[in-house]
Amino acid sequence: MDRERLLRQLAFALEIDKEKNVLRQTHLSEHGRHENDAEHAWHMTVMAYLLREYADEPIDIARTMIMTATHDLVEIYAGDTYAYDAEGQKTAREREVAAADKLFSLLPDDQAAEMRGIWEEFEANETPEAHFARAMDNVQPMMLNDSNDGADWKRRGVSRSGPASRNALTRMGSSELADYVDEILDKHVERGNLRPA
Amino acid sequence: MDRERLLRQLAFALEIDKEKNVLRQTHLSEHGRHENDAEHAWHMTVMAYLLREYADEPIDIARTMIMTATHDLVEIYAGDTYAYDAEGQKTAREREVAAADKLFSLLPDDQAAEMRGIWEEFEANETPEAHFARAMDNVQPMMLNDSNDGADWKRRGVSRSGPASRNALTRMGSSELADYVDEILDKHVERGNLRPA
Repeated sequence: MDRERLLRQLAFALEIDKEKNVLRQTHLSEHGRHENDAEHAWHMTVMAYLLREYADEPIDIARTMIMTATHDLVEIYAGDTYAYDAEGQKTAREREVAAADKLFSLLPDDQAAEMRGIWEEFEANETPEAHFARAMDNVQPMMLNDSNDGADWKRRGVSRSGPASRNALTRMGSSELADYVDEILDKHVERGNLRPA
Repeated sequence: MDRERLLRQLAFALEIDKEKNVLRQTHLSEHGRHENDAEHAWHMTVMAYLLREYADEPIDIARTMIMTATHDLVEIYAGDTYAYDAEGQKTAREREVAAADKLFSLLPDDQAAEMRGIWEEFEANETPEAHFARAMDNVQPMMLNDSNDGADWKRRGVSRSGPASRNALTRMGSSELADYVDEILDKHVERGNLRPA
């Protein structure tokens, strides 16, 4: 066995434990606490498998699952940027690239390139797997927020156009799931949890 | 689209959010808080992918990953049973089967059978994927506990024979990872964090 190789892999495995401490804006169901990135990634990964029949293009499910499981790792150093924080979004890419340089270099070179490639593929959003992974990235918090009567939107005064524009990305992965999300958004506008327009 | 089918899939997806509230005995790295089952499942899933080269038998990585991601879902109703709680372990199987009946029945019939089958495969531990998933189930908390100077063992006065017998299961999936774990156990006996024998 190549001892050095295993030690680098385990160093990376241990470092990513920190993703469990990166908090998101989303709250758990039943009006629970804030969700963290590791929980979000796990939930997306299971949902990608369960809902794979709704992918509009054929997907490699293993690649999709490792993508959903690792797409937010860079936030260990770069932090979570709220989807509707326009200022934060401007600098997010730069912070996340620096984080990727630091994080993936813990791995053996071949695996660093592979895992970085999976993250870049998610970011570029040009493959069927990235499209479906992004659909999960949108549908999973939407589902939680819907279950909490839209509390995360209401608290921040979010307008329908915010989640609706994210749902355009969902539609690149799954038109059926995007239709479903549109209905949820309409419902929350009607109920006053989302601002119209 | 079969609306009823999608709604059942989403009802299941929402229900499993509760796994984020099932606490384990393990603590996060850097002497952090208790880990929860969803975080553990996520970590195992990423590690299964990263360490797949150490599987002694060829494995289907997608099946292994969905197995690691869902192997503890039954604990939403059955609770986590500590590995070295002999009394709890006696009743765990019965409680977990009842939980599986309840949980998987939320899904459409075909998917209920599939997901239940994946869980039963993990439990039976007779396939290459189950062997490697169980190796991850052991190596992941071992890695965290090692990083915390064996605090989880020390707190409970655990003897080497406990984790060593679990490591016999790790060995069914990966002899190289099992060798590595044996070295860790020896180190913690030397340091007085694990009782000898």
